[in-house]
Amino acid sequence: MFELNRIINVYETDLMGIVHHSNYLRFCEEARVAWCVDRNLLINSNKAVFSLTVVETRVRHVSPIRFADPLKIVVQVKADKARVIFQYILLVNDREAARAETVHCSLAENFKVIRLDKNMTAILKEEKWTETWL
Amino acid sequence: MFELNRIINVYETDLMGIVHHSNYLRFCEEARVAWCVDRNLLINSNKAVFSLTVVETRVRHVSPIRFADPLKIVVQVKADKARVIFQYILLVNDREAARAETVHCSLAENFKVIRLDKNMTAILKEEKWTETWL
Amino acid sequence: MFELNRIINVYETDLMGIVHHSNYLRFCEEARVAWCVDRNLLINSNKAVFSLTVVETRVRHVSPIRFADPLKIVVQVKADKARVIFQYILLVNDREAARAETVHCSLAENFKVIRLDKNMTAILKEEKWTETWL
Amino acid sequence: MFELNRIINVYETDLMGIVHHSNYLRFCEEARVAWCVDRNLLINSNKAVFSLTVVETRVRHVSPIRFADPLKIVVQVKADKARVIFQYILLVNDREAARAETVHCSLAENFKVIRLDKNMTAILKEEKWTETWL
Repeated sequence: MFELNRIINVYETDLMGIVHHSNYLRFCEEARVAWCVDRNLLINSNKAVFSLTVVETRVRHVSPIRFADPLKIVVQVKADKARVIFQYILLVNDREAARAETVHCSLAENFKVIRLDKNMTAILKEEKWTETWL
Repeated sequence: MFELNRIINVYETDLMGIVHHSNYLRFCEEARVAWCVDRNLLINSNKAVFSLTVVETRVRHVSPIRFADPLKIVVQVKADKARVIFQYILLVNDREAARAETVHCSLAENFKVIRLDKNMTAILKEEKWTETWL
Repeated sequence: MFELNRIINVYETDLMGIVHHSNYLRFCEEARVAWCVDRNLLINSNKAVFSLTVVETRVRHVSPIRFADPLKIVVQVKADKARVIFQYILLVNDREAARAETVHCSLAENFKVIRLDKNMTAILKEEKWTETWL
Repeated sequence: MFELNRIINVYETDLMGIVHHSNYLRFCEEARVAWCVDRNLLINSNKAVFSLTVVETRVRHVSPIRFADPLKIVVQVKADKARVIFQYILLVNDREAARAETVHCSLAENFKVIRLDKNMTAILKEEKWTETWL
């Protein structure tokens, strides 16, 4: 498990006065990249982006997030054959705001699917996973 | 069924040279709002936004979308009790790029769930729905 | 002179209920790219982006723009030695919303400044320019 | 003077492999809001947004910013009659990336210009200002 904390910006809200739903995927990406950095998987940053190309996303909204809210994103990760699955719980002051899942594969720069990097595979074996998040 | 056509902008791409995955939800929103306008559901625009608050989103990516690509978004809609479900097929020159689903409910301005608007309910009864999109 | 028309999206607004100021530069970019397409300067789209790298931007806000507003962006362009200058008037139903200027140069893919493309230079000579826009 | 440090996200880059120019205004906003928080001007967050409505923006780009770059934004602020002027220097590892200026006024919720808040005025008197930034 891993967590990222950050504050909500004005430009992430919309006319409803709350965070626009598309930005949740951006928060998840921030947490995902921070997890990579924390696990020493960002040796070459561009390559790292291709190694976690997004195949599928899912977000379940529970309660709205507002400007200036302190957002905590808790992350868990596992391998699923050639894919990597991230799940996220988004919290504002211990109140659950959303849950999300993103599924990834590794692409070469020509956009062909390739095997997961060996470092990635080794690290994923050490990660804890709870089945009941989503 | 309903479709929206638009061109991909530079600011919607990322360093991979393709559209960033968070923007797919923005394309879906554009198609959803265009559907509302087409069905005369946008009498009061702010109210319309609250009447389709996003509860859940799901996107499955099939092939990348690039700058200047002509994007077609095909939409279908149905009611599911107090919820509205939109499904989307995103196409570039008849090549499938992604499929998506968004689930919505109607909120009062205090963010309490309310019943679907009667006009909305009446219009949803006339919409065609294919079960096998997603 | 050239103009682009488009509708404001929900995701372009912020908690003030109006378009976030950073998006004005995106609208200008859309108009700029549409101008390029109109003048047949988009033979290779990626190259075209590098040929109009942004060096400087300026926006003066006159009145707010809201969700669903029909936005008209009027554009004028001129060469200034190795640079290209675009100016924009943003209008909603003939009401002036903003004026803007962006200054560009041509970059090679290694980010070195290069001379303007000959096609671009030839086309810029034909463009009309009014000094008093900004 | 005040500074904010943050890391560049994938979703802030474009197909040129660098940060899209519209996002510079978002970075400036982040630094501006952080300055407000630091100066205790964010008692009511929504009001604070209206108290610094954007009237004018200007950005001069010096060198590109890339994914994962550590961005430092240095800020100075002064009053100019009913307006507040912010200037920004954006740095990546002590290399100058851009300079920017944003001009603001205070609006009531009906979008009429009002006088600057007394707290704001008092605090602005204490701020240091260097004329030669831009």
